[in-house]
Amino acid sequence: MTRPFSIVLAGLGTVGGAFVKRLASREDSAPALKLVAVSARDRKKRRALPLEGVAWAEDAETLLRHEADAVVELIGGAEGAARNLVEAALAKGTPVITANKALLARHGAALAALAEKNDAPLLYEAAIAAALPAVRVSRDSLSAEPVARVFGILNGTCNHILTAMAGGRPFDEALKDAQRQGYAEADPSLDIDGHDAAQKLTLLSALCFGVAPSEAAVETEGIRDLIQMDMRLAEGFGYAIRLVADASAAGGGRGIRQCVRPRLLPLGHRLAKAEGAINALIISGRHIGDLLLEGEGAGASPTAAAVLSDAAALARGDARLPVFSRPAETLREASAASSEKEAFQEAFYVRVFARDEPGSAAKITRIFAEEGVSLARITQTDEIRDKKTSGGVARLPVAVITHAAERAAIERIRARLKEASPIAISVETESAESV
Amino acid sequence: MTRPFSIVLAGLGTVGGAFVKRLASREDSAPALKLVAVSARDRKKRRALPLEGVAWAEDAETLLRHEADAVVELIGGAEGAARNLVEAALAKGTPVITANKALLARHGAALAALAEKNDAPLLYEAAIAAALPAVRVSRDSLSAEPVARVFGILNGTCNHILTAMAGGRPFDEALKDAQRQGYAEADPSLDIDGHDAAQKLTLLSALCFGVAPSEAAVETEGIRDLIQMDMRLAEGFGYAIRLVADASAAGGGRGIRQCVRPRLLPLGHRLAKAEGAINALIISGRHIGDLLLEGEGAGASPTAAAVLSDAAALARGDARLPVFSRPAETLREASAASSEKEAFQEAFYVRVFARDEPGSAAKITRIFAEEGVSLARITQTDEIRDKKTSGGVARLPVAVITHAAERAAIERIRARLKEASPIAISVETESAESV
Repeated sequence: MTRPFSIVLAGLGTVGGAFVKRLASREDSAPALKLVAVSARDRKKRRALPLEGVAWAEDAETLLRHEADAVVELIGGAEGAARNLVEAALAKGTPVITANKALLARHGAALAALAEKNDAPLLYEAAIAAALPAVRVSRDSLSAEPVARVFGILNGTCNHILTAMAGGRPFDEALKDAQRQGYAEADPSLDIDGHDAAQKLTLLSALCFGVAPSEAAVETEGIRDLIQMDMRLAEGFGYAIRLVADASAAGGGRGIRQCVRPRLLPLGHRLAKAEGAINALIISGRHIGDLLLEGEGAGASPTAAAVLSDAAALARGDARLPVFSRPAETLREASAASSEKEAFQEAFYVRVFARDEPGSAAKITRIFAEEGVSLARITQTDEIRDKKTSGGVARLPVAVITHAAERAAIERIRARLKEASPIAISVETESAESV
Repeated sequence: MTRPFSIVLAGLGTVGGAFVKRLASREDSAPALKLVAVSARDRKKRRALPLEGVAWAEDAETLLRHEADAVVELIGGAEGAARNLVEAALAKGTPVITANKALLARHGAALAALAEKNDAPLLYEAAIAAALPAVRVSRDSLSAEPVARVFGILNGTCNHILTAMAGGRPFDEALKDAQRQGYAEADPSLDIDGHDAAQKLTLLSALCFGVAPSEAAVETEGIRDLIQMDMRLAEGFGYAIRLVADASAAGGGRGIRQCVRPRLLPLGHRLAKAEGAINALIISGRHIGDLLLEGEGAGASPTAAAVLSDAAALARGDARLPVFSRPAETLREASAASSEKEAFQEAFYVRVFARDEPGSAAKITRIFAEEGVSLARITQTDEIRDKKTSGGVARLPVAVITHAAERAAIERIRARLKEASPIAISVETESAESV
């Protein structure tokens, strides 16, 4: 009989609490895991967790005085207690399991180097998409597959909001739903401004393309400016709107383009079919085609399950280095996406509010023409009017789908149409890359 | 510099050929793999494969005289050369990679025992769903997750046919498509009668539930009896028809119910959204909810990629035993599904052809009533008439969705309606299990 694999845990929030309960109620026997010590910011807080026989440490730092086979970090945050704990554990050669995407998106390369130097695995399945085995699949199953693109829905809150808006509910109400159901970040701007998805994307880029995680290299735009009418207009064109995190080999494979942006997807697209608060990830390989993983990407129970999955892998000796797809010292630096931007053309959805008066549509379309952007489709509708008026005149939405264009040209058009409250969203089309 | 990981390969069919090409053209460097010898049924056949410097073995047996770190078996078939080779390799402690679902579905437990006795990994990612990492995810990622159900679309040919029929194309034409595109089995009855999916399901059941693979334990029914009209009628009720392979814990978790059957799925169901020649697999866990894997489940290139993935795992020391989720000697015997059948109720779609004359519908519905099966919905349409006539009278389709009923009662109804060419398909409803 071997002794059980021992764990110390920092952080008893919703995920930490779920992990403790899960350890205490496991029905499967192998491998045996034993929680020996915990720490939490506020020890006094009533938690009703099964912590009999588990030692309390004053803080994350003193937690490491307890001998353990692995440290689980569920504190969160890119700096402070979380970073100190992970660095200290790896430095003494103790394997670390973390769900901390903010930490890894900022310090991933350095932590990976530290882990590899001390031969201590650093596992983070819970940091990307909870129940979706994104790390295991991209690092282990696809180690020999040339990946061309990894993209998907990495923020369940945004997907819930966008799906609800498409169903006729207003933004604010949908956001409140997500908060009630417990999968929204405490600070909603992390979700709806795209930062949460961007942090996760940096880890996928490291795994699939071998670039060092860097949130600064991700062009990031959230969903704040979208209104219900955009969902309806997009649907009229045959598209759904999703917040898509997207990393792809650009410029002949040398650079990696990383962005998080709302995107129009054909209604038949697999990501368009992903509705509600779920995550969906597509890994496109040259030989395997598109592989889709879809499931619960947030929430205490699926996230705790991912942490447990890493702990079980460590306990059975099935966790390995390097931390990302290649040794930390060979990770390439992530270049800012803008370096590639100019050469890349794609179609755009542009929606403005036009004054309901003669010549209004002509004025708008002329601006597109002057900027050299040709239009594939155009819709003006008086079914819904903007509540604002422009100089006493009502405003009607006008939406277009352009032919392939450079983002820079679209931005010039937006600037010229500023008074018409324009928004521009890129469109996923089969021919977008081949124009 | 370590020496490359050496491989011998038996079988140079479409998958074997793709694997050879892939090995010769790999751009990634680590881990290095080297093909040292091959065998094929017909050495003379023109193949245009990059086999310079690779030895030819007379047959699969003599292949093992070449020293190698792993044997790749791509011969196929549950007996004969494939079985002999795999047994001989494992007996001498050489790891084996196979794509052979027929072999594993019949001899999986014995081969797993042999592998474990000789400490030689037996890898088979390519045997279930090609590019979908079904083995790695269910065995490694979900080792600590209590799985309640694993189900999905495991035969791309059938899914292509069903999707094409829903789009208005006849069965035969859709089957010919699949054959032309190269993902149909050589013997189409393996696909359309459900055997291919059943063999794959036995492996998933072993991985997720720890039952020994046994095709005899899978209730299997194919798609031969379905006609285009069924797709239309089902859609009218709000469903799509899919061939679903399904294994779930039955009777309080003691037994495992395994079946491959056409099934009506709500149009919004994730498997209903899986269209064309793809595979889609849902693993339902108590803590993670539903995890979906979807992608290319057949074809030379994705299958060869799965073989390569296993080879890379072996080469980097990341392949482990046991072969299934638990040691071979502790696998439970799979019980025939029929043992559980009686207690289980679900809704059914039943379609018959009624004579176009007064009292016809009354006669049919009375039979349901007499067998104690109540009807939720009923549709009779004269839009399409059966080409057959019954005693000179035209026949019209009548379709019903029943409330939850036992399959035995439905079978009695089918027998009584024999002259009306009845088919019965179970319906996936949220309440099916809780009735």
